[in-house]
Amino acid sequence: MLSFHNECSKQLAKGENDAMKAKAIDAAAVPPRARQSNYPEPFRSRMRNREKRALGDHFGLKNFGVNLTRLYPGGESALLHRHSKQDELVYILEGKPTLVTDDGEVPLRPGMCTGFPAGGVAHQIVNRTNRDVVYLEIGDRTPGDVGTYPADDLVATDVDGRWVFSHKDGTSY
Amino acid sequence: MLSFHNECSKQLAKGENDAMKAKAIDAAAVPPRARQSNYPEPFRSRMRNREKRALGDHFGLKNFGVNLTRLYPGGESALLHRHSKQDELVYILEGKPTLVTDDGEVPLRPGMCTGFPAGGVAHQIVNRTNRDVVYLEIGDRTPGDVGTYPADDLVATDVDGRWVFSHKDGTSY
Repeated sequence: MLSFHNECSKQLAKGENDAMKAKAIDAAAVPPRARQSNYPEPFRSRMRNREKRALGDHFGLKNFGVNLTRLYPGGESALLHRHSKQDELVYILEGKPTLVTDDGEVPLRPGMCTGFPAGGVAHQIVNRTNRDVVYLEIGDRTPGDVGTYPADDLVATDVDGRWVFSHKDGTSY
Repeated sequence: MLSFHNECSKQLAKGENDAMKAKAIDAAAVPPRARQSNYPEPFRSRMRNREKRALGDHFGLKNFGVNLTRLYPGGESALLHRHSKQDELVYILEGKPTLVTDDGEVPLRPGMCTGFPAGGVAHQIVNRTNRDVVYLEIGDRTPGDVGTYPADDLVATDVDGRWVFSHKDGTSY
């Protein structure tokens, strides 16, 4: 779950004036998102070794999100997950992370990309090295998306642009 | 006009089997799109100094396009244009292009990004240097988009996922 849309509207409201002024910016100069994860505990804590800069929101984009994401050693992009309606693509800029899917693992390096069409394999990117990993992640905001997590007792449902998390038996967190 | 969707379906059909097999790939190993531009002449010839690799299509993504684009010296990303419904974002990987808008110019360098919300400033990226420029460009495929070109006698209308080009007086090319 790359969480492309939960905090976007807030960040946009806050930065809208600046975004309209600046036509281009060093991606690294976009402030990191204040909230590291929207997951409920115990999953949220697992995301403490990642940092996301919402590049698309900075420019007021609405149809998709583009994040510049840094995974510190031990960091993971998200829980192992798939989307029902939203596509995703990742392009590696720095470091050597591992793509983990429910169909095997692939070592990644700068210049590589990987894409996840809606309903495809479940996936996450993990940093098992002792150096930072930096990548661009892109995801659209098609409404009515459901995120499923084969390895965890979690379901995410998009309700009007916000993720609502529940247990697999339907009870809420 | 970054032409994210015209040739995508063709490329997907052709490469679908491979795409399903390969979970990740060196972006530079994705073959360039066979057709350099969908513009009618005299605009198509102006696009001969650019090369696009359709990364999102390679993985079967449908909701947005991600291109790895190389501008040779003298190349330009597109005619100066804006979209009515589709958002765009560009992240510079190599070289020092110039962002040209109908509201001024901005020098770009690797690590910089620039975004264009639907209905915003008209824009294009040009390579006035003697070295190649490489960037990632992202655009969604919201239906019913219209591309307008303040500097050229051209209008592009999205009809069922294909661009139809006309003169500004409505006559066809």
